[in-house]
Amino acid sequence: MTHAQHTPQIAILGAGLIGAAWAALFQHHGADVRVWDPNADALAATAARMKAPLEQLAQVAPDAGPRGALTLCATLADAVTGADLIQENAPESIPVKHALYAQVEPLMAPSAVLASSTSALTWSELSPGLQDPARLITAHPFNPPHLVPLVEIYGTDAARITRAEAIYRAADRVPVRLKKDATGHIANRLASALWREAVFMVQDGIADVEAIDAALVNGPGLRWSVLGAHMAYHLGGGAGGMEGYLAHLGPSQERRWAALGAPTLSTQVQAELVAGVAREAAGRDISQLEATRDKALIAALRARKDAPHV
Amino acid sequence: MTHAQHTPQIAILGAGLIGAAWAALFQHHGADVRVWDPNADALAATAARMKAPLEQLAQVAPDAGPRGALTLCATLADAVTGADLIQENAPESIPVKHALYAQVEPLMAPSAVLASSTSALTWSELSPGLQDPARLITAHPFNPPHLVPLVEIYGTDAARITRAEAIYRAADRVPVRLKKDATGHIANRLASALWREAVFMVQDGIADVEAIDAALVNGPGLRWSVLGAHMAYHLGGGAGGMEGYLAHLGPSQERRWAALGAPTLSTQVQAELVAGVAREAAGRDISQLEATRDKALIAALRARKDAPHV
Repeated sequence: MTHAQHTPQIAILGAGLIGAAWAALFQHHGADVRVWDPNADALAATAARMKAPLEQLAQVAPDAGPRGALTLCATLADAVTGADLIQENAPESIPVKHALYAQVEPLMAPSAVLASSTSALTWSELSPGLQDPARLITAHPFNPPHLVPLVEIYGTDAARITRAEAIYRAADRVPVRLKKDATGHIANRLASALWREAVFMVQDGIADVEAIDAALVNGPGLRWSVLGAHMAYHLGGGAGGMEGYLAHLGPSQERRWAALGAPTLSTQVQAELVAGVAREAAGRDISQLEATRDKALIAALRARKDAPHV
Repeated sequence: MTHAQHTPQIAILGAGLIGAAWAALFQHHGADVRVWDPNADALAATAARMKAPLEQLAQVAPDAGPRGALTLCATLADAVTGADLIQENAPESIPVKHALYAQVEPLMAPSAVLASSTSALTWSELSPGLQDPARLITAHPFNPPHLVPLVEIYGTDAARITRAEAIYRAADRVPVRLKKDATGHIANRLASALWREAVFMVQDGIADVEAIDAALVNGPGLRWSVLGAHMAYHLGGGAGGMEGYLAHLGPSQERRWAALGAPTLSTQVQAELVAGVAREAAGRDISQLEATRDKALIAALRARKDAPHV
């Protein structure tokens, strides 16, 4: 193509931790970013909140080229007007988001995409907030958004989804498309299913909280960082692959699923979870744990560049 | 302590892929390894099977020091006599393992540990094969055993467990202790629970096989390689940690668990799984996929040394 490269124009609505992480990510990857928040103090804190993510992004993607422009916008119109992608990070409340969408929609360019970072809500719950629901997609990042590459996408307008995916890919994200609207998207459903069994093992006395976490981080978690779950069973089937696995172990797999637990978050189980993570944290506070996590994520992301996952 | 360092004496029973991986791991980390297999051809193939694991271990742990001795043993007695740890990798059959244990037990040193690599069977099923069940532990590695650090341990003799753990740690493994015998140990229960939801999403049409794998590898899988599931919810609770998370989201968490799926491996679902991994493999055969997995695992393990997981 011979037309001049278009610099993506990104509006970030909501300057909390998620919004600031998005802003840093897009700016680092050369997009022009306009941030708006209804709270003037939150807006004023944006640059401070972006500082650590920008420093981390410089380690993950040092060759990203020049940063885009960053503008703090006093009005919603300043942020949204002319934006290709409007990433919404409002509180997880349907009325709050609907009220915001009613303001945003008349300001949007006809081709623009309104992308909600929502974790807990669905496209079906949010789209009635627009005159034209096709303008909305859900685009759920996995925390922390500037480090974990996944963005889970659902919407009904294929053209807008394709344009949004291109913008996310240009910001070094991995967009993954749902075929059907679903609470929890993909990743939080998987996380919820895994944690259910983890909590069951605590409740049932099979293993301690910190033992389960150690098993995950040094076992399946490590492997799932390079190989998907379906693909792991494909390799587990040997030369026969997934077909061989299912032929030999399919029936026993259904029995294994039936034997999994359904825990209750009773007072006692909750106390064991709280005590267990306290033992595991071993005196480290949340910010220290997050710093260790981020450093390890950055190292893992850098390792991936030379040795891509399956 | 002032006594001379004892070189661990390891017997490997069964020279298949798992046995060869164990042999390479222990030899690389300086233990003396004696391998036995009832099949002379399998025994003769041991060195060839150990070649790739040994080359990979040289990349993961280049500073491990001099290799231990490797001996291929024509008789079970040659392998077991004088061994501190006997790692059993026989077929997953209770009668086969019981018959082997009946031969092994009289040859074992009184303090030695018989460790079964079993994935599908439990300590309670296997221990009746010994006169003294305290000699047996289950010590389940996660595939591939020389790369993934986890070894899941259950037994009833605390002293033997402690000695076995020291031997595994000296071989750069992370032993994790179960408090109670459980089918699937910890890791395969977690993997089974996660895969159940992954298969449900395929069955329900929420997402394609390859999209689910991409979401896992670029989202929760990556994060679980640096942070356990319980700890992730601790950080997800913000300043309140796990306690705050449970207070705010515990009730909705139980609803989310109730909303997870229970798929059936119907002919149609099986066909979708097979077709999905074929699309994801994109023409790569099993050995190519394994090579990519191993290269990525090696890079991830090297990254971990500078930036340890939480």
